[in-house]
Amino acid sequence: MAKKVGIIIGSDSDLPIMKGCISMLKKFGVEYTLNVMSAHRTPQRAMEFASKAKENGYGVIIAAAGKAAHLGGVLAAHTTLPVIGIPVKSSTFDGMDALLATVQMPKGVPVATVAVDGADNAAILACQMMGIYDEELGQKLSQFKDDMEKEVIEKDAKIQSEI
Amino acid sequence: MAKKVGIIIGSDSDLPIMKGCISMLKKFGVEYTLNVMSAHRTPQRAMEFASKAKENGYGVIIAAAGKAAHLGGVLAAHTTLPVIGIPVKSSTFDGMDALLATVQMPKGVPVATVAVDGADNAAILACQMMGIYDEELGQKLSQFKDDMEKEVIEKDAKIQSEI
Amino acid sequence: MAKKVGIIIGSDSDLPIMKGCISMLKKFGVEYTLNVMSAHRTPQRAMEFASKAKENGYGVIIAAAGKAAHLGGVLAAHTTLPVIGIPVKSSTFDGMDALLATVQMPKGVPVATVAVDGADNAAILACQMMGIYDEELGQKLSQFKDDMEKEVIEKDAKIQSEI
Amino acid sequence: MAKKVGIIIGSDSDLPIMKGCISMLKKFGVEYTLNVMSAHRTPQRAMEFASKAKENGYGVIIAAAGKAAHLGGVLAAHTTLPVIGIPVKSSTFDGMDALLATVQMPKGVPVATVAVDGADNAAILACQMMGIYDEELGQKLSQFKDDMEKEVIEKDAKIQSEI
Amino acid sequence: MAKKVGIIIGSDSDLPIMKGCISMLKKFGVEYTLNVMSAHRTPQRAMEFASKAKENGYGVIIAAAGKAAHLGGVLAAHTTLPVIGIPVKSSTFDGMDALLATVQMPKGVPVATVAVDGADNAAILACQMMGIYDEELGQKLSQFKDDMEKEVIEKDAKIQSEI
Amino acid sequence: MAKKVGIIIGSDSDLPIMKGCISMLKKFGVEYTLNVMSAHRTPQRAMEFASKAKENGYGVIIAAAGKAAHLGGVLAAHTTLPVIGIPVKSSTFDGMDALLATVQMPKGVPVATVAVDGADNAAILACQMMGIYDEELGQKLSQFKDDMEKEVIEKDAKIQSEI
Amino acid sequence: MAKKVGIIIGSDSDLPIMKGCISMLKKFGVEYTLNVMSAHRTPQRAMEFASKAKENGYGVIIAAAGKAAHLGGVLAAHTTLPVIGIPVKSSTFDGMDALLATVQMPKGVPVATVAVDGADNAAILACQMMGIYDEELGQKLSQFKDDMEKEVIEKDAKIQSEI
Amino acid sequence: MAKKVGIIIGSDSDLPIMKGCISMLKKFGVEYTLNVMSAHRTPQRAMEFASKAKENGYGVIIAAAGKAAHLGGVLAAHTTLPVIGIPVKSSTFDGMDALLATVQMPKGVPVATVAVDGADNAAILACQMMGIYDEELGQKLSQFKDDMEKEVIEKDAKIQSEI
Repeated sequence: MAKKVGIIIGSDSDLPIMKGCISMLKKFGVEYTLNVMSAHRTPQRAMEFASKAKENGYGVIIAAAGKAAHLGGVLAAHTTLPVIGIPVKSSTFDGMDALLATVQMPKGVPVATVAVDGADNAAILACQMMGIYDEELGQKLSQFKDDMEKEVIEKDAKIQSEI
Repeated sequence: MAKKVGIIIGSDSDLPIMKGCISMLKKFGVEYTLNVMSAHRTPQRAMEFASKAKENGYGVIIAAAGKAAHLGGVLAAHTTLPVIGIPVKSSTFDGMDALLATVQMPKGVPVATVAVDGADNAAILACQMMGIYDEELGQKLSQFKDDMEKEVIEKDAKIQSEI
Repeated sequence: MAKKVGIIIGSDSDLPIMKGCISMLKKFGVEYTLNVMSAHRTPQRAMEFASKAKENGYGVIIAAAGKAAHLGGVLAAHTTLPVIGIPVKSSTFDGMDALLATVQMPKGVPVATVAVDGADNAAILACQMMGIYDEELGQKLSQFKDDMEKEVIEKDAKIQSEI
Repeated sequence: MAKKVGIIIGSDSDLPIMKGCISMLKKFGVEYTLNVMSAHRTPQRAMEFASKAKENGYGVIIAAAGKAAHLGGVLAAHTTLPVIGIPVKSSTFDGMDALLATVQMPKGVPVATVAVDGADNAAILACQMMGIYDEELGQKLSQFKDDMEKEVIEKDAKIQSEI
Repeated sequence: MAKKVGIIIGSDSDLPIMKGCISMLKKFGVEYTLNVMSAHRTPQRAMEFASKAKENGYGVIIAAAGKAAHLGGVLAAHTTLPVIGIPVKSSTFDGMDALLATVQMPKGVPVATVAVDGADNAAILACQMMGIYDEELGQKLSQFKDDMEKEVIEKDAKIQSEI
Repeated sequence: MAKKVGIIIGSDSDLPIMKGCISMLKKFGVEYTLNVMSAHRTPQRAMEFASKAKENGYGVIIAAAGKAAHLGGVLAAHTTLPVIGIPVKSSTFDGMDALLATVQMPKGVPVATVAVDGADNAAILACQMMGIYDEELGQKLSQFKDDMEKEVIEKDAKIQSEI
Repeated sequence: MAKKVGIIIGSDSDLPIMKGCISMLKKFGVEYTLNVMSAHRTPQRAMEFASKAKENGYGVIIAAAGKAAHLGGVLAAHTTLPVIGIPVKSSTFDGMDALLATVQMPKGVPVATVAVDGADNAAILACQMMGIYDEELGQKLSQFKDDMEKEVIEKDAKIQSEI
Repeated sequence: MAKKVGIIIGSDSDLPIMKGCISMLKKFGVEYTLNVMSAHRTPQRAMEFASKAKENGYGVIIAAAGKAAHLGGVLAAHTTLPVIGIPVKSSTFDGMDALLATVQMPKGVPVATVAVDGADNAAILACQMMGIYDEELGQKLSQFKDDMEKEVIEKDAKIQSEI
């Protein structure tokens, strides 16, 4: 049975940047859940979610958090599923604090980090991970890659016709 | 059939930091290949490797490169497999150049970035990705997590006995 | 009864930089314990320590960790005691990753951050916190401040006599 | 008798970001004073305030300043009370100048630093410090922690009902 | 026969900042083409463009890209023509990611990097390169330099008359 | 007649990192001169060199300087030849000061910047510039590119035989 | 006879931030001139101004420039008068490029650097320099310091009356 | 009567980097004193020194400090003499903490900042300040400038003879 993606956001203020993640998962026909859980304000719930994610049918966890972004690491501490971290840009430091707090994980507990506010790519990466052994998803990814290429080619053609 | 991990290093000078990656993959019993391919000096070979990685039985690609680290992104441009990027610290900027050049990928083509010189974690992350649908690998990851925990507890006990 | 200080280090490799913290606490006659606990490798033990720290007689927790230093934040998530975070310099980024991951805590869960590798100051700060209502400790802090001043004055006098 | 918190801002332009600090102290029923004192423009007054803070019934000093934020350090130089520093973001460098000028204190004179513009957390940290030996305040902090948790859970429930 | 300049932008969103580049090339009477090609989304087309640029009459390639800006490096990997890289500022990090990803090229494959968003200067630099052996272009560059000087002198005179 | 490359170093302490630049120019058979001239200590000589570089048979100027590296910009201010800037790493900031002082040139006066300490690439870039209209040099660059590719392929083969 | 202050701005776009500098010099009754001169576009004029500044009655030069801010250094190269550099914030990097390009001067040729956009302080510093041997100016500076102190005290009183 | 230079170092560990400052002042025949005074450990002595510096015959104060380098600002708060700040590189952050804490002074209280560890330049700058109205010192500075130029020219000649 196909695995789900569990999206966790550290604060409901992170919801807007996650729109691209959600629509991308929908596009690939991947089931997902989305929860607000804080590494610092609801640590128990975050821990429980991660601990049981595998048995609850999840294949990948996506964690989005800003500032001292511990969420990805805290979830990864409680699961052997791959955890994708999205560093969220907040009111200062342009997301550098969240990037370093997400990517610089110590030996033994990786968090697969994408670009600051890179919510679309987190979804694509989750699909790539699940597509390793899921041929149908793999096909959709190939199609998506072709479509992206065509889109750029069309934009190029449009610019040629305009200049 | 179990998928392989394709490790690509941008320069043979990156080999020493990859020892931990290799021994970790061996520990998990995951087959791998290791090649030196440069995004800039052998772009054709890098492109060909990535383009055919899926049909050649690879499940994940790990790319390690320093400075303007384009390797992960260039490989990801030619495959739908997940690509893990290890930013390598070089003679200046403490690996920040490689980190940003690896993680800040544009929409559509993610690179799953781990810590600067985080070769061990790249291997673990690759196993986690392949373990989504590979139960045996999943079990080994659980065992590994338990072992890590025991190791820390033992170190703590050792310190208690010393102070 | 006087409260204890609970020192937690994320890895036994952080022990050397903690020598100054320990000797400072001894100088002030403050009881302490020191444990190796990892936010990522032994999250349960870290959580349990923090959750019961208050009832176990602790007044302050000092957490030292490097890289994506989640330790201070994870402990703070489970206690209402003040948590002091020491960002530890590791092999890259000069401790900037640990500093940002420690200090940039979200609203509601502060970590009192000291300088990178500032183990001595973490101990002094812990004593200042506990000295708010502990007059004897307060007196020792005043004496310490006077001693520091004398030491600088003596160094100045020594330089005057040499040049 | 319960101790007061002395809030010092380096400039009246720092007042708006301190609203959260003030309302948090009110919420916890902690008495406070607020003064504009500059480490550079009214150094004497800053020095006198800090020197006499303890005998004047203060338990903690909170200092908020931007740019080359010397205020926390200058106050800490004249008192043995714990000093909490809030680095304030100004027109450039996103508060990094204020963060480094506040947190990187030399051995002997710590400043307990919170996040850039982290005024709420400064207040909570002050309460945590004073709550070490003040049971009533300790209880309020526990209640606050529970309330924060509930708030996140409610936000999560709200999102579940909307998607 | 005079060589052309090939301008490649990584995304059509980079077009606005290229206006200055285009008008500068027109001012110097240098023929150019402009294409949207992505190092990651249309890698084949980028590779083909660069591989054949020399035989197709190009003298210089200008590449503008943001974030993990691999475009300049990828083009340079496939040509012996000089490649000028313009790091484009995007939604975060003020263009530092693009600058480092463009300038920190490994030994053997340089990218001539100009300032963040420095599109005008990319055009001038291209003309300087082609003007090494093209006397007419060299003359225009001298004239341009004289005009710039006059413009500053006039602005100075204007300010003198106003104050 | 073939143009020369004028190498200017800001200090004789920069000479060691320039060895790669010199040997690369020799490899390509390009004539060069090397002078120590400081933007700040011998500004007149720097100005005179740049002003007369074109009539003296130079095609490209390479400037290497550290710290507040004004050398490239000062030379570029006095010539219409392309100026290549090598930011040199000095005792602090890992060359970031020199990089920004070299690359962030204002509109009108570009400096073609290569990587920190990227002396080899400065030479290659100079040859690429002069090779635009110099077919013989262009051929050598193609040969060099092929050789680099072969070198990487041989390293890869060597590693295959060893593992 | 009292010396003048020579203000040089690298571009007329720097004029707005200089208003504070001008009004401060007027307040102290110090004569000044203001010119637009570019280190890169009018290098000859900049050089001539600096070379003759001393004999033309100037005591201090203030240079304001952004990006790769070479202006202060270029002026300092041609005079033995003290040169004050104001790093100007431009469209990217928050003025860090200008700060490093101004302050990191090599041995022998200092530029007295003030804060990013610190135009007021540049004027005050110029007056302090000229006030070393000019008693009247020294008196005005004392008065100014007293006035600043009073202003802060009044702001504090105002806040006390409001809360 | 000629004014003295007052050198203050924040710690005796800063003494080695000050050797160049001292020998430069001796070269120019300027009288100086050197004291260890800490903004945080001996704030009273620092304040007293600065307050009385003018009446005690000082013309300029040079302050060298590392980390959260408040020394320059604290001295400047108590005097109207120009204060030169030398940011000292310490065990982390390459002196960036000291640079920002020294240069980013608020409006009204400037610190004339030189390069990280730029002790020689601090001395030269002090002489330039005092040389505004001291013709003899001005002459020595001109001579020094000529000597520097000759030294570079000789180094250039030496390199020419060697290559």
